[in-house]
Amino acid sequence: MKAIVIGATGIIGGAVAEALEASGHEVLRAARRGPLRVDMEDPGSIDALLESVGPVDAIVCCAASGRLASLVESSDAEFTLGLQGKLLGQIALVRRAPKYLRDGGSITITSGRWEALPGGSFAAVVNAGLDAFAQAAAVELPRGIRLNAVSPGWVRETLVRLGMDGTPGTPAAEIAGRYVEAVESGVQGRRLT
Amino acid sequence: MKAIVIGATGIIGGAVAEALEASGHEVLRAARRGPLRVDMEDPGSIDALLESVGPVDAIVCCAASGRLASLVESSDAEFTLGLQGKLLGQIALVRRAPKYLRDGGSITITSGRWEALPGGSFAAVVNAGLDAFAQAAAVELPRGIRLNAVSPGWVRETLVRLGMDGTPGTPAAEIAGRYVEAVESGVQGRRLT
Repeated sequence: MKAIVIGATGIIGGAVAEALEASGHEVLRAARRGPLRVDMEDPGSIDALLESVGPVDAIVCCAASGRLASLVESSDAEFTLGLQGKLLGQIALVRRAPKYLRDGGSITITSGRWEALPGGSFAAVVNAGLDAFAQAAAVELPRGIRLNAVSPGWVRETLVRLGMDGTPGTPAAEIAGRYVEAVESGVQGRRLT
Repeated sequence: MKAIVIGATGIIGGAVAEALEASGHEVLRAARRGPLRVDMEDPGSIDALLESVGPVDAIVCCAASGRLASLVESSDAEFTLGLQGKLLGQIALVRRAPKYLRDGGSITITSGRWEALPGGSFAAVVNAGLDAFAQAAAVELPRGIRLNAVSPGWVRETLVRLGMDGTPGTPAAEIAGRYVEAVESGVQGRRLT
């Protein structure tokens, strides 16, 4: 299959691109910088990217990230970081994707685990919203196109990069397996953890 | 208690205001039009409203609504109707509310039941997002302030107004009971259905 991985320069995106290649697929790596550019906060750049690569079998997005923000003390802009790119950007991607996907192709987006912890309330909105979106939007996709969300928890390599103990995290290669499952199996409208 | 009901001219909001009064509370009715004006798409108007009424014990928001929109065929603006008012407006309200609430006061927002049905994918984002937000944001509220979301399904009076069979809907007065429960009981971070 021909797959495009958005956010391929990130820890998860890089692992997903490698895993898809190891599984025999042709992988196009897109990111905010580099030859295949896309900015998930700019829906026009999503159209331009998909237009430029031609029909594909799989679109995988691992581009988006969030940040903890205090419920009461942060500014509206700080608080809703993740709104434009991770939430609305991925929704815009799914809405545009069918035009560029071959019959029976797949879209895989990235949500994330959330819990009731200080600073985590907007991440909860984004991640719960994306999980619900994957389930609800799947029923409207034409021509056998599938949609799923991978919901990673803490990533081991991210914890290590932040100078923390990596032990509680899941290795990126293991998380990448969920994306490969979403691309290769027949799952539809699911949240993969 | 002194309670403010936002969206008090709507079917649910009107029933909630009546039910709170019947339960002995002082109720201030706010809406897009009338003496106590607020526009949930404009956070500045939320501040102005809360500033003008002074300290209250309960803030209830029933103002927001959504609409079905096709995943692939609607425009971005049609598709994300409900984003500014229902999702971001209620989040902005919760972030501002503690400043105007007495110790131990409560905030009650409105989400909604969602299912995987054509045209329902953005409503799923909004409603699942708000339910998760109520749960996650509750842990950050100061001074014993509580936050809950009421998640109504079809409202009988709304179905009738739309010329449909009202039988599958829940009477607004029954839904109003969930809001009264959120205001009067000690529930915290819950989704009430």
